[in-house]
Amino acid sequence: MIKPQVPKGFRDFLPPAMNLRQSVIGIMTGVFERFGFVPLDTSCLEYAETLEGKYGEEGDRLIYKFLDHGGRSVALRYDLTIPLSRVVAQYPNLPRPFKRYQIAPVWRADKPQKGRFREFYQCDIDTVGTPGPYADGELLVVADRVLQELGFSDYTIRINSRRVLDGLVANLGIPATRTTAFMRCLDKLDKVGVDAVVAEMREKTDLDERGQELVRRMVAAESTTRADIAALIGESDSARAGLDELTAIQSMLAGAGIPDSRYRFDITLARGLDYYTGPIFETVVREPRIGSIMGGGRYDGLIGLFSREPVPATGISFGLERIVTVMDELGMHPGAQPGAAVLVTLFDESLIADTMALATMLREAGIATELYCAPVKLKKQLSYAAQRSITRVIIAGPDEMRAGTVTLRDMQAGTQETVARSELVARIRALESA
Amino acid sequence: MIKPQVPKGFRDFLPPAMNLRQSVIGIMTGVFERFGFVPLDTSCLEYAETLEGKYGEEGDRLIYKFLDHGGRSVALRYDLTIPLSRVVAQYPNLPRPFKRYQIAPVWRADKPQKGRFREFYQCDIDTVGTPGPYADGELLVVADRVLQELGFSDYTIRINSRRVLDGLVANLGIPATRTTAFMRCLDKLDKVGVDAVVAEMREKTDLDERGQELVRRMVAAESTTRADIAALIGESDSARAGLDELTAIQSMLAGAGIPDSRYRFDITLARGLDYYTGPIFETVVREPRIGSIMGGGRYDGLIGLFSREPVPATGISFGLERIVTVMDELGMHPGAQPGAAVLVTLFDESLIADTMALATMLREAGIATELYCAPVKLKKQLSYAAQRSITRVIIAGPDEMRAGTVTLRDMQAGTQETVARSELVARIRALESA
Repeated sequence: MIKPQVPKGFRDFLPPAMNLRQSVIGIMTGVFERFGFVPLDTSCLEYAETLEGKYGEEGDRLIYKFLDHGGRSVALRYDLTIPLSRVVAQYPNLPRPFKRYQIAPVWRADKPQKGRFREFYQCDIDTVGTPGPYADGELLVVADRVLQELGFSDYTIRINSRRVLDGLVANLGIPATRTTAFMRCLDKLDKVGVDAVVAEMREKTDLDERGQELVRRMVAAESTTRADIAALIGESDSARAGLDELTAIQSMLAGAGIPDSRYRFDITLARGLDYYTGPIFETVVREPRIGSIMGGGRYDGLIGLFSREPVPATGISFGLERIVTVMDELGMHPGAQPGAAVLVTLFDESLIADTMALATMLREAGIATELYCAPVKLKKQLSYAAQRSITRVIIAGPDEMRAGTVTLRDMQAGTQETVARSELVARIRALESA
Repeated sequence: MIKPQVPKGFRDFLPPAMNLRQSVIGIMTGVFERFGFVPLDTSCLEYAETLEGKYGEEGDRLIYKFLDHGGRSVALRYDLTIPLSRVVAQYPNLPRPFKRYQIAPVWRADKPQKGRFREFYQCDIDTVGTPGPYADGELLVVADRVLQELGFSDYTIRINSRRVLDGLVANLGIPATRTTAFMRCLDKLDKVGVDAVVAEMREKTDLDERGQELVRRMVAAESTTRADIAALIGESDSARAGLDELTAIQSMLAGAGIPDSRYRFDITLARGLDYYTGPIFETVVREPRIGSIMGGGRYDGLIGLFSREPVPATGISFGLERIVTVMDELGMHPGAQPGAAVLVTLFDESLIADTMALATMLREAGIATELYCAPVKLKKQLSYAAQRSITRVIIAGPDEMRAGTVTLRDMQAGTQETVARSELVARIRALESA
């Protein structure tokens, strides 16, 4: 006997979990399409060289690589952004702006541990071919709409800009070669706190006394006004332009009617990935404190790695696993649960054709109907209905078949009634709308 | 520069292809749920030992195996049946009958060639925990419903039984040890014709003169009645019981109102896989001749390989790739094409908030609306709408914004009208229902 198990860090999703996952994916897809995003599906496997060198040193180590049957180095995709960049370079005739969504699994060669998996779903939207900041602002409007329709109320969309951060780095007196190290330190703020971050910055970026003081003041600030940010980023033109972009994004969010309690500029937001070049985003749920459920930003340099032509692009990614975890914890269950509304029981072998005809009649009327496909004891069929939370059961033995009636049982009330077959659809509809 | 390409045998699906794929998947899911099947998602990766030894010698060679980072032998799943069998053994508390659907990619280490891919989608429904034949019959009712709702008209569901085939093998005088070889030969009938099949049977199964004559008569028969089959399979109890199962399935299909022109018992149907034990099925489209678009059967022995308890099970699998190929060739395009109904153009930077508010108003009214996120020349924005087949474009410059109006352009007619902002939703709805 082979022990039934999945490789460590991998999971199955059983039907109850799938119901929530599919509801979330359905709501997201609906919003994405309402904003004009179109679906794309890419190969799960990429040549390793397509992925390598894009995610920073730590990311590179997590690429799920192996040797293909032909001996070539391939990898399961690490995210949906690099495959999109490859697709845009590979198919130059795609309409621009190319606004696509993709909801699909990605893989990481991570050490499996609680809440960390090697296979998980990402839900991405990206706009390719449009420079900032309006395409960026639109992504945040979509993100807010998705979170609203999923039923989230207590979240903050954090917004910053790599250009603003570059200005900050210069103003702090950190050499430009240490910019990545600075971002990495800053990115750990939520996890390790300001003291550890400042200590690490001193060590890794030569942050001086004045710089340390500035970082502490920046982190301590309850809110950041445009003037506060302007003071922190100094006089660089690029940083000022970055700040103007953030202002334009703010005016788009206001135009979309999003209350300003749901988003804020946060100069401490850094995002770990190397490839961002402009506005960057992240959404955190306040309770439970589970980290980011959406992140993203502008990556104008990435597609150029695969193409002679540089192409501006921006995108966000929702983490499906964290979203369903939060929704489960908060008891949020959007949408109708799929599953049959009615179970038609099977009395015995001789009635199979008649019973199938009965189930067919209900399905043709649009009523989700499950047929019990074995002539076992009625008690067993009823207990299956209870286990599956099917509330209405139809029983039709030889007498009922002859009389053109059925027994309709209400599993919750434990009551039964006799209904003429010709009235059955109307009766079930009446009960459902009651 | 890295050349943008996917590994050989792998593909991307761009938005136009995705629209059809998503329509097909949506229709299938709708039918599956209407019959009470529930969703399951399994890990893409399995331990190699979970898959090995289940698919026959040739199948085993096609398992997409590699060494995991921990050095363990793992494989991308080969189909959705073995993972289901593993899941049923691993989670013994799943309700029975367990009727699940799964629509997901599978992988084969096949030599890439025209129409053969290493990654493709299967769409499976299986009923676990119910002995035959009613669960089997129900699967065929679902299959017929799916094909009807997809718009297929010219197909045949072929039905046979491994137990009937076993009787045939005995009656042909072939030793039981050559049964698999006989099935493999018979399975090639459509591809190589009767002469080659009989020649191979002579060589591989010692088929004698009388047997060869029987096979030729069996293949030549235009239709197979119960009496014809009974004559071919001899007197074995198991074969007779198999024949009774096929008769019960036939009466279910009739009960579901399926005309008998859409299915037939075909004693020449063998199915390649080793693990079938009872009724087996296959659906072929008559034109274009592309092979099977659905196949399956009962596999009562499979789950027992992972579990102390043997569990009866039956299932069918639709091949998404062939289905969309046929639908594309026949010009079948079910369902509405997703995509925005309206493009809102952006006049200039100063109007971004107002323009976003306008797009938001339309979306809140349920109208799929794309905003052009860059203040480029109107001509360029219009040509994008044409490229994306968006038929209605809204133009609102400073004058319109002040006057509370918009210009609504019909891209097909090339005409424009001025509409009050407060009337815009109603006007678009009126045009859409016209």
